[in-house]
Amino acid sequence: MDVTRVADGLKVVVIGGGSSYTPELVEGFIRFHHELPVRELWLVDIEAGLHKLNIVGNLAKRMVERSGLPIEVHLTTDRRTAIKGADFISTQMRVGMLEARGRDESIPLKYGVIGQETTGPGGMMKALRTIPVLLDICRDIEELAPQAWLLNFTNPAGIVTEAIHTHSNVRSVGLCNAPIGLTKWLTTTYDTAPEHIYTEFVGLNHLHWVTRVDVNGVDKLPELLNNTEGFSGKNVPQTGWNPDFLRSLGALPSYYLKYFYMTDEMLAEQQESFKKDGNRAAVVKRVEDELFQLYADPELNEKPKQLEQRGGAYYSEAAVNLMKSLYNGKNDIQTLNVANNGTIDFLPDSASIEVNCVVTKTGPLPLPLTNVPLHVKGLIHAVKTYEQLTIEAAVTGSRDIALQAMVHHPLVPNVDVAIKLLDEMLEANKDYLPQFFPQV
Amino acid sequence: MDVTRVADGLKVVVIGGGSSYTPELVEGFIRFHHELPVRELWLVDIEAGLHKLNIVGNLAKRMVERSGLPIEVHLTTDRRTAIKGADFISTQMRVGMLEARGRDESIPLKYGVIGQETTGPGGMMKALRTIPVLLDICRDIEELAPQAWLLNFTNPAGIVTEAIHTHSNVRSVGLCNAPIGLTKWLTTTYDTAPEHIYTEFVGLNHLHWVTRVDVNGVDKLPELLNNTEGFSGKNVPQTGWNPDFLRSLGALPSYYLKYFYMTDEMLAEQQESFKKDGNRAAVVKRVEDELFQLYADPELNEKPKQLEQRGGAYYSEAAVNLMKSLYNGKNDIQTLNVANNGTIDFLPDSASIEVNCVVTKTGPLPLPLTNVPLHVKGLIHAVKTYEQLTIEAAVTGSRDIALQAMVHHPLVPNVDVAIKLLDEMLEANKDYLPQFFPQV
Amino acid sequence: MDVTRVADGLKVVVIGGGSSYTPELVEGFIRFHHELPVRELWLVDIEAGLHKLNIVGNLAKRMVERSGLPIEVHLTTDRRTAIKGADFISTQMRVGMLEARGRDESIPLKYGVIGQETTGPGGMMKALRTIPVLLDICRDIEELAPQAWLLNFTNPAGIVTEAIHTHSNVRSVGLCNAPIGLTKWLTTTYDTAPEHIYTEFVGLNHLHWVTRVDVNGVDKLPELLNNTEGFSGKNVPQTGWNPDFLRSLGALPSYYLKYFYMTDEMLAEQQESFKKDGNRAAVVKRVEDELFQLYADPELNEKPKQLEQRGGAYYSEAAVNLMKSLYNGKNDIQTLNVANNGTIDFLPDSASIEVNCVVTKTGPLPLPLTNVPLHVKGLIHAVKTYEQLTIEAAVTGSRDIALQAMVHHPLVPNVDVAIKLLDEMLEANKDYLPQFFPQV
Amino acid sequence: MDVTRVADGLKVVVIGGGSSYTPELVEGFIRFHHELPVRELWLVDIEAGLHKLNIVGNLAKRMVERSGLPIEVHLTTDRRTAIKGADFISTQMRVGMLEARGRDESIPLKYGVIGQETTGPGGMMKALRTIPVLLDICRDIEELAPQAWLLNFTNPAGIVTEAIHTHSNVRSVGLCNAPIGLTKWLTTTYDTAPEHIYTEFVGLNHLHWVTRVDVNGVDKLPELLNNTEGFSGKNVPQTGWNPDFLRSLGALPSYYLKYFYMTDEMLAEQQESFKKDGNRAAVVKRVEDELFQLYADPELNEKPKQLEQRGGAYYSEAAVNLMKSLYNGKNDIQTLNVANNGTIDFLPDSASIEVNCVVTKTGPLPLPLTNVPLHVKGLIHAVKTYEQLTIEAAVTGSRDIALQAMVHHPLVPNVDVAIKLLDEMLEANKDYLPQFFPQV
Repeated sequence: MDVTRVADGLKVVVIGGGSSYTPELVEGFIRFHHELPVRELWLVDIEAGLHKLNIVGNLAKRMVERSGLPIEVHLTTDRRTAIKGADFISTQMRVGMLEARGRDESIPLKYGVIGQETTGPGGMMKALRTIPVLLDICRDIEELAPQAWLLNFTNPAGIVTEAIHTHSNVRSVGLCNAPIGLTKWLTTTYDTAPEHIYTEFVGLNHLHWVTRVDVNGVDKLPELLNNTEGFSGKNVPQTGWNPDFLRSLGALPSYYLKYFYMTDEMLAEQQESFKKDGNRAAVVKRVEDELFQLYADPELNEKPKQLEQRGGAYYSEAAVNLMKSLYNGKNDIQTLNVANNGTIDFLPDSASIEVNCVVTKTGPLPLPLTNVPLHVKGLIHAVKTYEQLTIEAAVTGSRDIALQAMVHHPLVPNVDVAIKLLDEMLEANKDYLPQFFPQV
Repeated sequence: MDVTRVADGLKVVVIGGGSSYTPELVEGFIRFHHELPVRELWLVDIEAGLHKLNIVGNLAKRMVERSGLPIEVHLTTDRRTAIKGADFISTQMRVGMLEARGRDESIPLKYGVIGQETTGPGGMMKALRTIPVLLDICRDIEELAPQAWLLNFTNPAGIVTEAIHTHSNVRSVGLCNAPIGLTKWLTTTYDTAPEHIYTEFVGLNHLHWVTRVDVNGVDKLPELLNNTEGFSGKNVPQTGWNPDFLRSLGALPSYYLKYFYMTDEMLAEQQESFKKDGNRAAVVKRVEDELFQLYADPELNEKPKQLEQRGGAYYSEAAVNLMKSLYNGKNDIQTLNVANNGTIDFLPDSASIEVNCVVTKTGPLPLPLTNVPLHVKGLIHAVKTYEQLTIEAAVTGSRDIALQAMVHHPLVPNVDVAIKLLDEMLEANKDYLPQFFPQV
Repeated sequence: MDVTRVADGLKVVVIGGGSSYTPELVEGFIRFHHELPVRELWLVDIEAGLHKLNIVGNLAKRMVERSGLPIEVHLTTDRRTAIKGADFISTQMRVGMLEARGRDESIPLKYGVIGQETTGPGGMMKALRTIPVLLDICRDIEELAPQAWLLNFTNPAGIVTEAIHTHSNVRSVGLCNAPIGLTKWLTTTYDTAPEHIYTEFVGLNHLHWVTRVDVNGVDKLPELLNNTEGFSGKNVPQTGWNPDFLRSLGALPSYYLKYFYMTDEMLAEQQESFKKDGNRAAVVKRVEDELFQLYADPELNEKPKQLEQRGGAYYSEAAVNLMKSLYNGKNDIQTLNVANNGTIDFLPDSASIEVNCVVTKTGPLPLPLTNVPLHVKGLIHAVKTYEQLTIEAAVTGSRDIALQAMVHHPLVPNVDVAIKLLDEMLEANKDYLPQFFPQV
Repeated sequence: MDVTRVADGLKVVVIGGGSSYTPELVEGFIRFHHELPVRELWLVDIEAGLHKLNIVGNLAKRMVERSGLPIEVHLTTDRRTAIKGADFISTQMRVGMLEARGRDESIPLKYGVIGQETTGPGGMMKALRTIPVLLDICRDIEELAPQAWLLNFTNPAGIVTEAIHTHSNVRSVGLCNAPIGLTKWLTTTYDTAPEHIYTEFVGLNHLHWVTRVDVNGVDKLPELLNNTEGFSGKNVPQTGWNPDFLRSLGALPSYYLKYFYMTDEMLAEQQESFKKDGNRAAVVKRVEDELFQLYADPELNEKPKQLEQRGGAYYSEAAVNLMKSLYNGKNDIQTLNVANNGTIDFLPDSASIEVNCVVTKTGPLPLPLTNVPLHVKGLIHAVKTYEQLTIEAAVTGSRDIALQAMVHHPLVPNVDVAIKLLDEMLEANKDYLPQFFPQV
């Protein structure tokens, strides 16, 4: 990013700009404009999403107008024009939309396997659909904005970020709202400011363990691990874990680790919930429809409160924080998904991992880990193996590699189930998997 | 081993000398005496095994007498006298005897978990019982025969060998009969000599993959992987695998990998068999009783044919081959369990792995691997993680670490089962686990 | 460091407290008392240094009195009392005093070898004298203040710090004033504040290269490398280098690298200067005598200006900065000498290196390097090899290892010189090398 | 190499076939024809070497005829026809011929630097001339004989082999006669057979240390290191070393290490010899002229005795041994120059190193090192750094990189000399360095 351009302000592109999360991002750009001088905001979506893009885009315009800031909001389906010369590009997309998510979540349940859109076979299918599309976008970025930073929120964020690192030259970081969510919970619980919280993460996206929690310079991890009842309310990190297990684990596990550590219970819950409400995709769809009704109100010119109840709280804060630090060379510490490069010594350099990084002007540098518990190494490696096979399958369209990915996923019970589940899931996603179903 | 002693012949000690396998070993020492000049053979056992020791020991004496070789056979329960000044020591023991094996195999089945004495929770219990006893023996070797080579056959051989590497200074190698068994099968199948067979192993003991099979200089692996029906008879390495899976795996999996890849089927088979025959320990006991009846016959002065039908074929051949190569510095290639030292790049240096080694005068050197398939890395690391936690639990007596070992074993379905299974198994092995149940 | 103690303020110990640098440190503690609440300051020295200790100590007391701050200043030769319960300990010592330095600098010149007290054979002798003394101090710290941080300024700082890491459990960091000196020079040259400067260091203490210089977010390295004339004044980092060499090097070399890259010229200069003025030790002695005359003035109650002209500018600032960040968990970036732990991938984990670190509450974490030029790898490794052999020689008293250290130092021309030089230097330092000259 | 071709015999190509060494090779092919069934032997040379090629080639034909073996000998300047479908290709070439060698050896002496055609600036120049030519040959091999093995004897063999590994896909091994020469000396000294000798090498080509010497299973290294006088005759590995140095080194150094450890003495010797005889190139030229006179004798049909007195004894034996083992998958141990791949843990995977390898059917596998003395690590890395920069300079034609290579060579005393020496040597080699002197 050169100095002249900075003087003029930044060009930011949101791919999947018609998403219901966009108003959060816009609010962030307005609030931190003094640190991150956005001049142009380009919201990009595909034809099929044009209706939503217009609703969200017009709300964005009203929000900017109210702020009085010199930000131009552009709505477009022309991705290449948007990308050209961009400083920051964020992606939040769902290839196949909520219908595909529905299938990701429901098909595995038929085989007694966890159905989830980021972890397990559901996440694998999402990755197979998404990676080729994102790599196409990366081709455009390489050509039209080679210096841009790509902030990837698209799930499964770890896999997708690694695919970008290994199959393109785009400068990219993967982001999740879980780390910032933990900090928020700790500030509330201990009534302190975020700058007095220090946590250390080890692992992968949606497969991390928190091995250190300092609050005002005091180690609170033992207290948190031993008090599985004392803190109440949803989103409490210790909720629902067996106390003996948690204490002997010596780290706060990600919520998503319940799929691995409490598989039967989580599966039963999913099957129950599916019987009652259909899959979670349907629930999300209802919430989204309501949000878009709100957004369409021409009187609305700020982010509606209801958006906060949606799962993705803090996404925008995470994104704006990262852009600010990259732009200003803040050298502050954020938990991000980046290339391993020796940080976790048993994973390859190219593996995407979720760890603390110092965000310098030229990119995030992962901090050395002070604690990698022995007991989590195997699971990290098992899931990373599956992730790397999934990327290779997505890029090559090899059913053999996809089968090996599926077989070796820790949540898939055996080869027999893997073969049947893979067959059905590939077939169900045929329209979005041209690499597996080439036209004759 | 100094030159003077060599002139006089070697002192070899068999700990667990009352085992039914011993006649095989004795036969090997007789057959290869020109290459491995054994002068003293010490068979050691515990008081409880004295009866068997005498039966086997007397057979050994008759076998030696018949051979006319100058080998002295000593029977003793005095381990330290036996070890003093030894050149080679082999161990084949079962702490808790067949009764404990019965529990290792049956308790997991109650919780819907594979019951097996080397793989899974059963193997974990065997390791917890065995490691402290073997480390005690190592203390004696460090003191009384620091230059001796310890050949470890005691299962789970990989875990036990690693415990020795990491918690003693004894020079030790772990041995399994599977690699030599594969070579034997290939020589028969392709009607050639062992020296025209070259196979490459990667993985851990009872968790290996064969990634290369050259016969007379020609790569036969693709043929073997694609022909899951063509070769018949028991012990055929490809038998029972799904053909699509096997081909996409690109390697011949160890028989023991069926526990991981075909878990449900193997579990059903175990439960069926348990209902019918009781556990495998009971079957083995019957076979052993028959063997000892034969051994006791004062007319018998050679290894009886029936011994070959017992599971452990080729154990003695593996042991004698290794001793010969160490003693003579043969620099030949054998598949052994040794410290990793960078061979598998994602495992710690101290991890015991099962790979091809050049056997030099000063010990086996693992050969670089030419092929570590991506898809098997996670599973290797997951099992190794469990193994390392098991060793730590065995040495410290920490129930917390034992719980983490159990939870993170790929065959244990969830935390809830892990806790209950661990509790029952520890309790059932109380008499053999003083480190977990200290006297007040 | 626990919370209760913090409430009461910190105990800081300066070993070698009679040094002429001490008033700088005292000034730092006064200036930053709001961030680093020093309660007790213990200045420790040996009997032979008592006279100086009293002069400096009384000046320190007058400085504190003038400040009105609640800092107690203690002067003592009782090291153990001083260390007991300390929070921070700094060392600045010279075993053998300036007389030994004189020999370190002059003996090599006789053999046509660079004579310098940190680099080359002179530094080796200083290390052999110093390491056993410092490890003795570490034994005390392990016993009496196991949680204390040891800030080591004692030269050769890299070698000494590594000796502490590898032969004690003391938490220790090595410090040099070169990095802070470069920042100071850049702030003046570019008229900006330190927080707008970002530099990246790679290498060892007194053997580093600066591979990145950002000023206000702009990469100034090419400009600095190409302008070897444009900036004037002493301490300009590019002064005296061949322009073609500097440009092709692609990094700013440490001043000390002139000993390696311009050996003949530096040697000629040393020999010239030695003929004229005697060795540098004599010059330093004169400066010190003058300083102590000033310090003895009972009217003086602040750091005298003249101290700044002494070579060691910014030492105190470096020390206080580090203590502040460790105490407050500032997570800021400082250039320090720490254990490698994979940062420079070809050096062992225990090697002390000089790189950027994030200073967390539990210690400095080295940042990943973004640029390790190929051409400097060999020289770094050659010097580190010498350093490690020197540490081993210092600890074991092995003349064989000392010879190998000397032979393999890049500034020692051949084996013949190494043998003669080592013999003379060991003999000349006999009184301070009991490990090499054991009493019968 | 497929089975059908093997049935017909092998096609072997010698690039630089007009070399005086060729009769040795031919003798080897004749002697070991039963193990290595050569069917076609192609001797290739450039136009300028045609005269010599014909002389040597006709001798080769007479030797084959005398043997009665079905080997066809082809002489050609058409490299591509020769390479097409080859099984083994060996290279022994000298770009610029003996005139260039003369300059490599004499120019450095003017600057007080060792003049040698493999080590130091002379070797650098040879590498800069040779690498582009060899990479051109590799392009042909990739296209016309992708399965062929390239045996590289061209010096500096380590650098050239690494250039091939890193800049082509050709399967290549570097060979030197030093390892086999040591074995020969040991068999004579201890009156035993080669199969009772085991030595371990660590280092690079012409920069190795022998860390183990077993004769009949007994460690003879201490005896050899301590007896610098007792063995007499030329080629004795311990000759000329300082006894204290040798003992403390703990390894037998390569003869070429005298350039590093005894620089002044070797330089004086070179300057003396140059004054007396002109450079070694001139001496070699005389020897060669005599050999070719012999070769031209139409009565001669065997390798003349005089060839053995030439420096390169055992080259042919090394080459034929390697071909035999690759062809037959002998799995024996040979000391070769191969890609590091983690064997020396501080060097990159692609670095060419000289170590013991098991020669399998699919190529040599380096054996793990049992002893890498700390004191030699820095020197190995320093020279490897120079080697890698030299390769990069040869491929890119960058004078900047060439300067960094020269500056960082341990035998070049300072930057000033490096610049002047580089300038003169590049200019003197202008005709052979098109990459540095592009045509406008």
